[in-house]
Amino acid sequence: MKLAEIGEFGLIGRLRKAVGENRDVVLGIGDDCAVTEVPAGHRLLTTTDLLIEGIHFRRDWTDLRQLGRKSVSVNVSDLAAMGGTPRHLSLGLGLPPDLTVEDFDHFMNGFLAAAADYQAALIGGDLSRSPGPLVIAVTAQGVVDNSRHVPRSGARPGDAVYLSGTLGDSALALHLLQKGEQPDPSLVRRLHDPEAKVALGEALAAKGLPSAMIDISDGLLADLGHILESSNAGAHIQAAALPLSHPFRRATANDPELLDLAWVGGEDYELLFTVPPDQEALLRTPEFIRLGPLSRIGTIEPPGTGLKIVGRAPAKTGAQGYSHF
Amino acid sequence: MKLAEIGEFGLIGRLRKAVGENRDVVLGIGDDCAVTEVPAGHRLLTTTDLLIEGIHFRRDWTDLRQLGRKSVSVNVSDLAAMGGTPRHLSLGLGLPPDLTVEDFDHFMNGFLAAAADYQAALIGGDLSRSPGPLVIAVTAQGVVDNSRHVPRSGARPGDAVYLSGTLGDSALALHLLQKGEQPDPSLVRRLHDPEAKVALGEALAAKGLPSAMIDISDGLLADLGHILESSNAGAHIQAAALPLSHPFRRATANDPELLDLAWVGGEDYELLFTVPPDQEALLRTPEFIRLGPLSRIGTIEPPGTGLKIVGRAPAKTGAQGYSHF
Repeated sequence: MKLAEIGEFGLIGRLRKAVGENRDVVLGIGDDCAVTEVPAGHRLLTTTDLLIEGIHFRRDWTDLRQLGRKSVSVNVSDLAAMGGTPRHLSLGLGLPPDLTVEDFDHFMNGFLAAAADYQAALIGGDLSRSPGPLVIAVTAQGVVDNSRHVPRSGARPGDAVYLSGTLGDSALALHLLQKGEQPDPSLVRRLHDPEAKVALGEALAAKGLPSAMIDISDGLLADLGHILESSNAGAHIQAAALPLSHPFRRATANDPELLDLAWVGGEDYELLFTVPPDQEALLRTPEFIRLGPLSRIGTIEPPGTGLKIVGRAPAKTGAQGYSHF
Repeated sequence: MKLAEIGEFGLIGRLRKAVGENRDVVLGIGDDCAVTEVPAGHRLLTTTDLLIEGIHFRRDWTDLRQLGRKSVSVNVSDLAAMGGTPRHLSLGLGLPPDLTVEDFDHFMNGFLAAAADYQAALIGGDLSRSPGPLVIAVTAQGVVDNSRHVPRSGARPGDAVYLSGTLGDSALALHLLQKGEQPDPSLVRRLHDPEAKVALGEALAAKGLPSAMIDISDGLLADLGHILESSNAGAHIQAAALPLSHPFRRATANDPELLDLAWVGGEDYELLFTVPPDQEALLRTPEFIRLGPLSRIGTIEPPGTGLKIVGRAPAKTGAQGYSHF
């Protein structure tokens, strides 16, 4: 069915039904604004991400359900990087003429399934036509205990640098797709359906462990660079300590240049954080072990140090990750 | 200068400098999320609007400074329609290849000037390339005293229907531009630089006057329809009571069909609200008189009534305003 047959208000009606009632939402989809509560003793976190067809995704490489999931996860990942708890999502969609109602439903099914996974409620947004690309604009709101949010700016010399999960899987999948090859399904999943590390971010912030934190969206080098610049610090990073998945190691064994993707690939959505040395032992307690593997990849150094890589550095040392222009 | 020469982070740096510090913003542009406070005893209002080139605007008809202003005002208008006070803006921009740094600066100058007018702070967003159209995604956040927000759903039979300002000016300007004519500058201003009625919305909500309120973005008939549907009510509207500007009357004198634009044109960004009869006298006190003209255009009736127009109805009575598909 064509979107024009059901119309903007028909689509909004479908969404209202699919979303239902939610905690702390006083007034949800269907009025001029959503009305929500921020619990006492908490601060509000807000983040926005645009996903534009032809720039951030191709419809022939991803299905719309995955795209719906991903458009939630990449935003929620920014909440996780502050130590926040996801609460609300606002969704702007620019819909191209060839998109059908079935496509819209697939996208929304994925979007709402991911929202439910993260316990975040869709509270409103805007639906519009687009003259060309599918446009997805998500704003995510979360909450965090007063003064518990983790900025990028708190890293101090002597702090250890930690990373969750593995690096480069998503960028490798994209690279292979671009070459017309079929990547390992686990790599493709990292690209098309990444998982935001909400539980880890919450646990770290609740314990007040990280002095700085960021999620890896632009690549390790670029995002570590953001921490170093905001914190006015340098760092030593051990190349051998970079966490790499088995499929990534297998695929890069015959082509060592691809190892650079672990440094500059981007879209990993892992958490990169710094921890004062006297707090590191806490990361080896059961609470954190059950939240998945953490790798200690280096240390924060004084500002004059810059960023020093010990071991095999990426070929393009000037590369600063994915730039959007 | 090309945007690629300055890059995403260069642009973000420019914005950080332009924005500066703001009340109740704990952490603004440049981290994973913005961190803000919602004052005790208040609720959070959130609204999102997409503006996409070729659908919502044409770059050859509007300058980018005006477009920056308008992208703030249309969002703030939704806050006003709930009786809210604007606080924060999040901005997603998809920038086409032909857009220069100077264009970007013009847009942002307008955006930040309007934000300052409404005392709203830019707290973050996302900058991206676009393969074609300029894409503007704004999320506005405001606050409102607990339980003072005005929904669409509270209109009751016997309530009077009021409207601020004048109708049809913006749609008439667009119509004349589409015909290749040069409209009166005051009409063009309504189209390209509309003003959100924040002070009026705040004053009405503070006094608890409106039983329902909406801003006119889709046209009087469509937006009144939203109130009637949400409130499960009908209405009588006096055609002769519709507030029309002098330039609108002049331009439509020889072409009465254009009068329909007052009913179905849209983008008026006036406030349409309903008031219980025992509260109407308050609207004639100096506090409200100084906030600009209000017109009493009809009454709310029982649900079975539907929407009855007394006097000259628009030619297309089935027309339900601007639909986005």
